[in-house]
Amino acid sequence: MSPKISDEVKEQRRQQILLAAEQVFIRTGYELATMKNIVEEADMSRGWIYLYFQTKEEIFEALIAKYEQENERMLGELIACSPSSWAALETLLTEQKKDMTTIENSLASAYYEYFLSGYRDKDRRIRLIRRYETGLSYVIRLIESGIAKGEFSPTLHTGLIAKIITSHLEGIMSLAMAVGAEQAEASAQIDALIPYFKILLGVSEDTG
Amino acid sequence: MSPKISDEVKEQRRQQILLAAEQVFIRTGYELATMKNIVEEADMSRGWIYLYFQTKEEIFEALIAKYEQENERMLGELIACSPSSWAALETLLTEQKKDMTTIENSLASAYYEYFLSGYRDKDRRIRLIRRYETGLSYVIRLIESGIAKGEFSPTLHTGLIAKIITSHLEGIMSLAMAVGAEQAEASAQIDALIPYFKILLGVSEDTG
Repeated sequence: MSPKISDEVKEQRRQQILLAAEQVFIRTGYELATMKNIVEEADMSRGWIYLYFQTKEEIFEALIAKYEQENERMLGELIACSPSSWAALETLLTEQKKDMTTIENSLASAYYEYFLSGYRDKDRRIRLIRRYETGLSYVIRLIESGIAKGEFSPTLHTGLIAKIITSHLEGIMSLAMAVGAEQAEASAQIDALIPYFKILLGVSEDTG
Repeated sequence: MSPKISDEVKEQRRQQILLAAEQVFIRTGYELATMKNIVEEADMSRGWIYLYFQTKEEIFEALIAKYEQENERMLGELIACSPSSWAALETLLTEQKKDMTTIENSLASAYYEYFLSGYRDKDRRIRLIRRYETGLSYVIRLIESGIAKGEFSPTLHTGLIAKIITSHLEGIMSLAMAVGAEQAEASAQIDALIPYFKILLGVSEDTG
């Protein structure tokens, strides 16, 4: 019988598997990755890994959930600590600029692949829609905090503005991924969003 | 020996194969499609099809090239026939709105898949970058025709504006594909682009 391990060690091992899997997904994409690759990268026994995850899909979902939690935490802090909601949005855009420069070495391409191959898979599509709505809800929260503080007076409804912001960043990201961030002038594209978003949100003069 | 066939018949057959292949790619996506599926859909003998194309990649490239030629022709006509360059751009956006409603039954998802699985394939990536540049060059032509006519006075450089327009449409399209056009409010998102593009292009009062 194997010795009992603490919850802390269990969580450490889980994180070790996720870290290894992330490297594999970045290197090979989603479709070509195998549990065997992940076992080798994690440098753990096969048996150990199967205690935590049965399929690469489970691991990938856990990775996405991990990033979503981090994003949610970051956004919560950002709203709490920024001098204004507009400043919070600008910080988010600055973060996106940084992310664009490393996009070719990120999970992004595996993420797209996963969603595309999942496009015809009903369950995965439902999860994708739910995830899209979760992502939107963060942006909506940010916009609503600005409205509540009297910073923003948008003319379009909040949900639509959140969708517009999301689409724009999404489009820049997918082109940066396809042709490279430099070729896509991703950073300049994000800068060009700032005056547009100000208009969309109806940012008051003394904030923006 | 098979009887000689005219160039016209040859071209007809080629189009028949492309049409059939398009149906297969729409139905199954790129990765899962096989030459066998295409042969069956085209209702021609295997031998005939292989006279025209050796691989599904060749067929897919031919399909993309066909759409690119159509787009180029359409854009040429649009610039030639529209009362203004701004009107031409508005027509393009209206077309995009129509396309969004049928996106789930279009080549779009196979197209994304092809580029994503091609992301790590050097040759395909070079073709992808060339294609992106061709797409941009159409938008640049449209912007430059507006500048030449004194309709547009943009402050950003033409190439960057073309990239911004392309990214935005791209982002809306990929979200429409992922969650459905209605859920993404694709049409309202495109409408919201109009005032933004006016500012970006510096559309003069008497045009816009």
